[in-house]
Amino acid sequence: MEEKEISQAVIGRLPRYYRYLKDLKDSGKERISSQELSRIMKVTASQIRQDFNNFGGFGQQGYGYNTNYLYEEIGKILGLDHVHNMVLVGAGNLGQALVKYLKFKKSGFNFICAFDINPQLFGQTVGGIPIRPLRELKDYVDANDVDIVVLTIPKSDAREVAHSLTRTNIKAIWNFAHIDLELPASIQVENVHLQDSLMKLSYNIHRNSISPDDDQ
Amino acid sequence: MEEKEISQAVIGRLPRYYRYLKDLKDSGKERISSQELSRIMKVTASQIRQDFNNFGGFGQQGYGYNTNYLYEEIGKILGLDHVHNMVLVGAGNLGQALVKYLKFKKSGFNFICAFDINPQLFGQTVGGIPIRPLRELKDYVDANDVDIVVLTIPKSDAREVAHSLTRTNIKAIWNFAHIDLELPASIQVENVHLQDSLMKLSYNIHRNSISPDDDQ
Repeated sequence: MEEKEISQAVIGRLPRYYRYLKDLKDSGKERISSQELSRIMKVTASQIRQDFNNFGGFGQQGYGYNTNYLYEEIGKILGLDHVHNMVLVGAGNLGQALVKYLKFKKSGFNFICAFDINPQLFGQTVGGIPIRPLRELKDYVDANDVDIVVLTIPKSDAREVAHSLTRTNIKAIWNFAHIDLELPASIQVENVHLQDSLMKLSYNIHRNSISPDDDQ
Repeated sequence: MEEKEISQAVIGRLPRYYRYLKDLKDSGKERISSQELSRIMKVTASQIRQDFNNFGGFGQQGYGYNTNYLYEEIGKILGLDHVHNMVLVGAGNLGQALVKYLKFKKSGFNFICAFDINPQLFGQTVGGIPIRPLRELKDYVDANDVDIVVLTIPKSDAREVAHSLTRTNIKAIWNFAHIDLELPASIQVENVHLQDSLMKLSYNIHRNSISPDDDQ
């Protein structure tokens, strides 16, 4: 497959295609046209073709897409044919909920260890993985094959932890702390800012009540 | 303040301004120029001015922005001068973590009740709010002032629950179910698709390992 620079907007749409294709595949649908996919997903067929053309197509003229093949190929593009080892930093409520979320495991995202600063948690387990003292994080990451660090700690601590990881071999931080992290380009960051999401919702609620005729 | 159609891209940036302004305000910084804000937030000063001009400005030539005023005004635009009542649907790990997350409450987002299908949870509480049977949701929503329904249930159940809420007075759904909901325009939806976020991260990890010279 050709390598070219793909926009983050296209990348951001791939998981949604992947999700719809899984449902189609699971429901026994073997092939689908871009028009049909367009109707189900509520995006234009032209958008779908353009998105897929970034990766060299996938369709056959007059046949459409083979759902299973397309599902597998998008999975490979997303790197889902790899297993990713993850460690949790911050074994509070949100962190523990993420560790226990089984669907991540099904997609090859495996939590292997958790870290916290609360001594009462040391030696305990969550979702079958041990909780260790945060001060052991760097050594653990250096000694083990860790791909992704999941940060669910207060913003006051997040910057320091992220900084301590800059000279390790981790590939990415999945950041739930309510702060923007500054990291070298070799470490990918994906933010989940729950409060920002809620504020956006709040804006749209009140905008809607001010001018009810506006559309989305 | 003038009302005009503001793009969702601008709205999506407001919570980040709000967050930085809170930090500036809390650190005792009384005023700030767009250049200084630009440097801290790593967006162009021109972008900042354009974003704020959507709401009629806020700045004074030669003075810059009063951080406290700007913080308050953006808060009002985001609707944060209102209290929002929320109910949780799905009192599993993620749902319980969200209820216990105190920062939402500080921003005026109050969970008032939780619902689940698990009879063992009925009558229990989480974070001080009761957990009731899901079948009582519609009646509860009709009898109480509920602004936002937070959906943390499997995708197989999410569509039906969302549908049951279409003829109620709720204003929004904050959707964590891994599915796209179809709702009337009167109900705002904000999705938090954790798996999509993780897949995007995975893509960027592997893209990075294929062509290490690409920039973000």
